[in-house]
Amino acid sequence: MKIAIAQINVHIGNFSGNLARIRSAVAEAKAQGADLVLLPELTTVGYPPRDFLEFSDFIAQADEMVEELKADAKGIAILVGSTTVNPVPEGKDLYNSAYFLADGEIKAIQHKTLLPTYDIFDEYRYFEPAHEWEVIEYMGQRIALTICEDLWNVGNENPLYKICPMDEMIDQKPDLILNLSASPFSFDHAEDRVHVLRANIEQYHIPIFYTNKVGAQTEVLFDGGSLVMSPDGTVYDELPYFEESIRTYDLEDVKKVTDPKREQERDKMTLIHDGLIMGLRDYFYKLGFKRTILGLSGGIDSAVVAVLAARALGPDNVRCVLMPSQFSSDHSVNDARQLAQNLGSQYEIIPIEDIYKEYEVALRPHFWGTEFNIAEENLQARIRGMLLMAFSNKFGPILLNTSNKSEMAVGYGTLYGDMCGGLSVIGDLYKTEVFELARFMNKDGEVIPENIITKPPSAELRPNQKDSDSLPDYDILDEVLFQYIEQRKGPKEIIAQGYDEALVRRILRLVNINEFKRYQTAPVLRVSNKAFGMGRRLPIVAKYLN
Amino acid sequence: MKIAIAQINVHIGNFSGNLARIRSAVAEAKAQGADLVLLPELTTVGYPPRDFLEFSDFIAQADEMVEELKADAKGIAILVGSTTVNPVPEGKDLYNSAYFLADGEIKAIQHKTLLPTYDIFDEYRYFEPAHEWEVIEYMGQRIALTICEDLWNVGNENPLYKICPMDEMIDQKPDLILNLSASPFSFDHAEDRVHVLRANIEQYHIPIFYTNKVGAQTEVLFDGGSLVMSPDGTVYDELPYFEESIRTYDLEDVKKVTDPKREQERDKMTLIHDGLIMGLRDYFYKLGFKRTILGLSGGIDSAVVAVLAARALGPDNVRCVLMPSQFSSDHSVNDARQLAQNLGSQYEIIPIEDIYKEYEVALRPHFWGTEFNIAEENLQARIRGMLLMAFSNKFGPILLNTSNKSEMAVGYGTLYGDMCGGLSVIGDLYKTEVFELARFMNKDGEVIPENIITKPPSAELRPNQKDSDSLPDYDILDEVLFQYIEQRKGPKEIIAQGYDEALVRRILRLVNINEFKRYQTAPVLRVSNKAFGMGRRLPIVAKYLN
Repeated sequence: MKIAIAQINVHIGNFSGNLARIRSAVAEAKAQGADLVLLPELTTVGYPPRDFLEFSDFIAQADEMVEELKADAKGIAILVGSTTVNPVPEGKDLYNSAYFLADGEIKAIQHKTLLPTYDIFDEYRYFEPAHEWEVIEYMGQRIALTICEDLWNVGNENPLYKICPMDEMIDQKPDLILNLSASPFSFDHAEDRVHVLRANIEQYHIPIFYTNKVGAQTEVLFDGGSLVMSPDGTVYDELPYFEESIRTYDLEDVKKVTDPKREQERDKMTLIHDGLIMGLRDYFYKLGFKRTILGLSGGIDSAVVAVLAARALGPDNVRCVLMPSQFSSDHSVNDARQLAQNLGSQYEIIPIEDIYKEYEVALRPHFWGTEFNIAEENLQARIRGMLLMAFSNKFGPILLNTSNKSEMAVGYGTLYGDMCGGLSVIGDLYKTEVFELARFMNKDGEVIPENIITKPPSAELRPNQKDSDSLPDYDILDEVLFQYIEQRKGPKEIIAQGYDEALVRRILRLVNINEFKRYQTAPVLRVSNKAFGMGRRLPIVAKYLN
Repeated sequence: MKIAIAQINVHIGNFSGNLARIRSAVAEAKAQGADLVLLPELTTVGYPPRDFLEFSDFIAQADEMVEELKADAKGIAILVGSTTVNPVPEGKDLYNSAYFLADGEIKAIQHKTLLPTYDIFDEYRYFEPAHEWEVIEYMGQRIALTICEDLWNVGNENPLYKICPMDEMIDQKPDLILNLSASPFSFDHAEDRVHVLRANIEQYHIPIFYTNKVGAQTEVLFDGGSLVMSPDGTVYDELPYFEESIRTYDLEDVKKVTDPKREQERDKMTLIHDGLIMGLRDYFYKLGFKRTILGLSGGIDSAVVAVLAARALGPDNVRCVLMPSQFSSDHSVNDARQLAQNLGSQYEIIPIEDIYKEYEVALRPHFWGTEFNIAEENLQARIRGMLLMAFSNKFGPILLNTSNKSEMAVGYGTLYGDMCGGLSVIGDLYKTEVFELARFMNKDGEVIPENIITKPPSAELRPNQKDSDSLPDYDILDEVLFQYIEQRKGPKEIIAQGYDEALVRRILRLVNINEFKRYQTAPVLRVSNKAFGMGRRLPIVAKYLN
């Protein structure tokens, strides 16, 4: 039997587009001689469809697509993820299902058992878990159908779950495991996937064909990296990261490990770089936009975002605006201009001093006798945000947000100012990682002017300001933030690691009191295991560590 | 036996504050002669604590508080909600529990069985459901302990659940049911609560003491309205809405229905008015702020928010800013000024025309040859937002957002402009409900100048603009929005109700394409069954109905 893995990119709710994409994948698999084609989890509706799942009209369209696809399942079997309405009143209204279509019919439906309900996942909000498992037979092979998380409880050792669907099926003597996934990217996740599939192989000793979704759904990136595993634990093949791909395998070759391919390199910065580019590109593509605009300050954050944007959308689609104030240093303007020239992107310079002075005039009677403070600093950041939004509203490009994870964490940014934008590109990268990414981008020649990377970071909102005036050194800040955000350590545990107590308490307090700013920020492209946004849900009005 | 219901207001993560509040409630119950005091769900940590539940340091502090409370359980039994660490690795890490403290000890712990995971609720993200149920005996009475949702599956007829904890306990012959709740307010929910408790009575024929949390957690309002139900289905007493209250009942009186109290009036506008005031007040109180600022346009939305703010925080703590442009009508300024005077709040007038012109100068070379459009309209709204934020940053008041649900739904608002603010006060009220609330506020004399209520709504961002230039009449718009948002009807179903097809499709498309704006909006005080925010989770990059 020849099995095709179709690692494709679908679009939430775009039923006609998704149907066309599935059909072309099926045609390609047929052309490759496949007997069966394996599509990702919830291919019909896109993943994660979130509360659209509560609309019966939305579900009816998914059902209709499965009906239509039956006609395509001739001369090839199609395994496609879609929703199923729970036929009995008890339990949640839906199942998350794998449809096995062959000979123009629905031959089998297997529902998902293990429903992730943590971080970005809300599956138990919508879905009822499977209570029945049946191995299906096709072309003389006994197939165990699983969906994503179903393979993540090997030997029932994942404490989150009490059932292991493969344990339920193994007595039915399957010859192979198929898995339909929508497994989100983080820079260390591809490694995890190989480990967990290998653990399944060690338990069940049969080959696995694992298809993962590719593409971006707003903040959630899917990297593909679909896997074919031989029964001896060899990675027979790993499909590319961040791009669509359809490849067909002879099951006998996979079983005998004839001519295996290799796993890919998993360099952290390569993955982050390529993942962010895919995320950016897909965000614009799926929204139907081509052009972007961003403010270039001469600092490293906007520089890195500009490079990513130019690589994702093409330099002609990137418009840079330099908006110096009386506090901007000459080198900032020069560095920013040099960067735009290196990229080959359009740029303009709009000094903000006159507008700023007009605000001063309007506010003078009310601010009389007060010192220059955060109010005046924020005014500058907000004038810039407003000018950029005016370009966006006038000509249609989407404004990109350039905040990094460190400043988002401690609230070192101006709401409605530099925190504006439709998409936060590097909001899941700590400042130290932004530096790392900048150096990575320059590895084959200087794109980002060296001075942008080497000069001390500054918001330039008051004379001779430096980030280090208000924040701890980024090296230490980022380590403490990582312990709190990613590792969810408490203050005592972090202090016990040797960090200064007052510093740790100050940082954790800043993180918690700035939840209100993050609440109003654009979605953040997720590259770590714990990004700000839908995967990290905290109360605004709380009094914990603050 | 005398049972006290302590409907109190606690603060998420404020362990020392919550301990003090619980202790004073226990003291008050003792003073009233109670043998047992019943506190709300998760009293120690506050509700909903969200991902703080993933921090072991946070959970350890809750455990510590329960330990400390044992000493208070002398001469009175305390029933208090807190977390319990799941002692076995299988399942979620925590239980949501009711602790029965008496004689200085933990006498019993009953975990919650039914874990709401819909709308604003994420309980299955954190909690393992109870698998054991044991009626406890105290002072000769057999008590069935339940937590909130546990009573919402009467006769196992709620399709969401497969277990009914009371059915599991009824064979143990309980004499009464106690329930610890954190049941959020919506304007029609108090009615539901009486119905569901009465259905329990009809099934089990024993009295119920139901204590509900009061106070606001950011957007989620808790109205109290705790209930004591006699075994014949009589509402023996209903505690006040929107305020703390501790009342003690003799169990024998409740059983015999001796001297029952009455349910309260449940007028929709009274509930919304009082709920929003509590929400506003608690938001400021728990964040440690006293003062607010808002822009008064002369329109109805900002007028209603100003009245609510003055009633919640006191007129001295409300600062109003009038920011007319060249497009503002005279009556707008006059109406706004009159309102501020009626309230007795400080106001200032800051014309924005000069600032606007300075932006025009800066943008002229770039906007050359383009028509006045949404870019120029939004500039005005954003200048106003910036001026208000400058006051907020300079003097510390929190800016209130004045958007209504209709405009948030269809995106008729300027991101970073009139959509600024730390809290959306009326973002869960459709425009027609805002009018209703304004009239309600004027029922005992004119607070909001009549002209604000009667003139046609206008954003006044271009000459002679009216909302009706770009939007359908609010009467029809709000009905269609209600069908889509609250009722989750699809286009076909709404059109089948007799609405114009093109209009329905246009409205639904506007709702879906404006998800990106709502993503960056302040939390919205929730008064309906489906508010924007944490209870309505939709993808930004989707192509459904748009």
